Amino acid sequence: MVIVNQPLQALQNWIADENIDVAYISNPTNILYFSGFESDPEERVLALFVFPDQDPFLFTPQLEVEAAKEAGWPYDVYGYLDHEDAFAIIGNEIRKRNPDPTQWAIEKDDLPVQRYEAVLTQFPNASFPADASRFIEQLKLIKTPDEIAIMEAAGRQADYAFKIGFEAVRTGRTEQEVVAEIEYGLMKKGVMHTSFPTIVQAGVDAADPHGAPTQAKIEPNELILFDLGTVNRGYMSDATRTIAYGTPSDKALDIYKVCLEAQLTAQDAIKPGLTAAELDQIGRSVIEKAGYGEYFIHRLGHGIGTSTHEFPSIMEGNNMELQPGMCFSIEPGIYIPGVAGVRIEDCVHVTENGSEPFTHTSKELLTIEPRN
Amino acid sequence: MVIVNQPLQALQNWIADENIDVAYISNPTNILYFSGFESDPEERVLALFVFPDQDPFLFTPQLEVEAAKEAGWPYDVYGYLDHEDAFAIIGNEIRKRNPDPTQWAIEKDDLPVQRYEAVLTQFPNASFPADASRFIEQLKLIKTPDEIAIMEAAGRQADYAFKIGFEAVRTGRTEQEVVAEIEYGLMKKGVMHTSFPTIVQAGVDAADPHGAPTQAKIEPNELILFDLGTVNRGYMSDATRTIAYGTPSDKALDIYKVCLEAQLTAQDAIKPGLTAAELDQIGRSVIEKAGYGEYFIHRLGHGIGTSTHEFPSIMEGNNMELQPGMCFSIEPGIYIPGVAGVRIEDCVHVTENGSEPFTHTSKELLTIEPRN
Repeated sequence: MVIVNQPLQALQNWIADENIDVAYISNPTNILYFSGFESDPEERVLALFVFPDQDPFLFTPQLEVEAAKEAGWPYDVYGYLDHEDAFAIIGNEIRKRNPDPTQWAIEKDDLPVQRYEAVLTQFPNASFPADASRFIEQLKLIKTPDEIAIMEAAGRQADYAFKIGFEAVRTGRTEQEVVAEIEYGLMKKGVMHTSFPTIVQAGVDAADPHGAPTQAKIEPNELILFDLGTVNRGYMSDATRTIAYGTPSDKALDIYKVCLEAQLTAQDAIKPGLTAAELDQIGRSVIEKAGYGEYFIHRLGHGIGTSTHEFPSIMEGNNMELQPGMCFSIEPGIYIPGVAGVRIEDCVHVTENGSEPFTHTSKELLTIEPRN
Repeated sequence: MVIVNQPLQALQNWIADENIDVAYISNPTNILYFSGFESDPEERVLALFVFPDQDPFLFTPQLEVEAAKEAGWPYDVYGYLDHEDAFAIIGNEIRKRNPDPTQWAIEKDDLPVQRYEAVLTQFPNASFPADASRFIEQLKLIKTPDEIAIMEAAGRQADYAFKIGFEAVRTGRTEQEVVAEIEYGLMKKGVMHTSFPTIVQAGVDAADPHGAPTQAKIEPNELILFDLGTVNRGYMSDATRTIAYGTPSDKALDIYKVCLEAQLTAQDAIKPGLTAAELDQIGRSVIEKAGYGEYFIHRLGHGIGTSTHEFPSIMEGNNMELQPGMCFSIEPGIYIPGVAGVRIEDCVHVTENGSEPFTHTSKELLTIEPRN
């Protein structure tokens, strides 16, 4: 038996240690992580089954079987046609390896109840003592140097996207048109996927921290917020910059100054041993002391890697200690409805002594003179 | 008590009929359908709770509470901060309305086991006799005239995307560059979301029915496949055209001819009362009779609406009878590895006597003369 990669080996070791008979990996991002095979199955069944002492197998829609083999997966791949009962086929393949697996590990964050019940239909004696979501979360927590190199490349893509976006700003151009320029510029460089829909928000629109770009036209003397990210070989970048277009109000400039101080203070404070909650408080307290605490209504940051929201979460209550190789965002924001919104974000990886950001676009307030 | 829309009223009637105490809607697409509030919560909790005889409520991350109200949701919205226990807050709100709800409806296709267990932690007496996924699937099956009008507009966007794509084809341009032109052209018209990543595949690349566009350069005398769709007010379009760039091989032209005959034959056969399986067989038999049956390895079509894959599935084994208002794709494909791939697809809605397509780009083989 050959184990092809370190994460798959680690998963197999874990299920052996936990006396698990079979692990059912259902999340497509995690299937990519363990198998090297990338697929968005939509409502069809895509699954990876791993055993403590036998070869794993992939299960895919029939029309993806060849693609899975071509992706380099060296073990078996089984397919099913749309009219076939996927779990009946899965059940048969598993029984060939273990006639009655009772101890299952499943991804409880991902597996829908319908498929959980399908497992129980095939294996009425199944119990689910182990949550693979928690194990995978831990496994992904410390990135290897190879993973960090991939994420650095994703960060360079995000820096390039900011450059396109800043150059695209014009009076009278809509937020959506600036998004179009950014994504077009990325695709022309072969960056086909953003890690989330690109956000450009001008003026008061930026006061909605989860708003989407609109057909509102950019006007002089506003702040403009850009939040964007790319996908590079399955790993994400994510960064935010807020710039001045002309001369924003004193209030807008003041919240920028405070938000930048919070961002820099937190990023500078990162070091192994500090807890996630302490780091959140270091950033948050800068904003609170300036009197804007009520306008910072989300956590300081989120983990990043093969997804844009993973461990560690930089927030109150998370007493996890930072360690070298952890990757997360530092993104304080101040959102004053009807006035302005500012967010400034780098994702970083923790080093032995501090941290290094994945994005390098300047955070000092960039001012662009209004232009047509 | 005011019920704001027909689907929400229908859901409330269903849970009353089924003697359900509370329905937990978890799928963001379905939350949009019932509430009018659109959000991608990623790993955060977004939920809609509906009761048989009390007002429903939305539950969102704190930073989306205002957006939910602004979207027009007239009932309560409760939020939670990242460090708070979402299900503890949900549990308290539900208990204010019913101290011990035991009969639950959940979306079994969507709800992950972790949240199912969180419900059980809050409500140890909960049982789950009703699958809201099955009810919603049926509810969405027959589109209203208003929904069809929205989908017609989405179809016009897809037709426009084909026009951009066909104009963008050049010798030496990559598949990805053509995708860039299509998505840029759509975004410049304010169409910010495709219903799936746009597919452009030239030559033998099109023989992989689930492949992604690559940096392969377009060469003369190949077929080029375009599969694309847009999102209009939450409803999807989805269509495929295959064109000739120069003079493809006789084999490639032959599979085009067969695939087109299958597509037209099936689309012409649609009428109320025919079953989905019969329709699949009508299209499939054209390809089988021409000797290409083994190269058509997926169902004839899928339902479409607020998602690109919903009921009715046009496939073997589905004896559902077609009815006016059903919307689905007719998309036969022939994929010969190393040779060529063809797929031709319209989505249609069933009418009293037949069907009407949402897309109108010609299906006769379009030939573009090679150009630089």
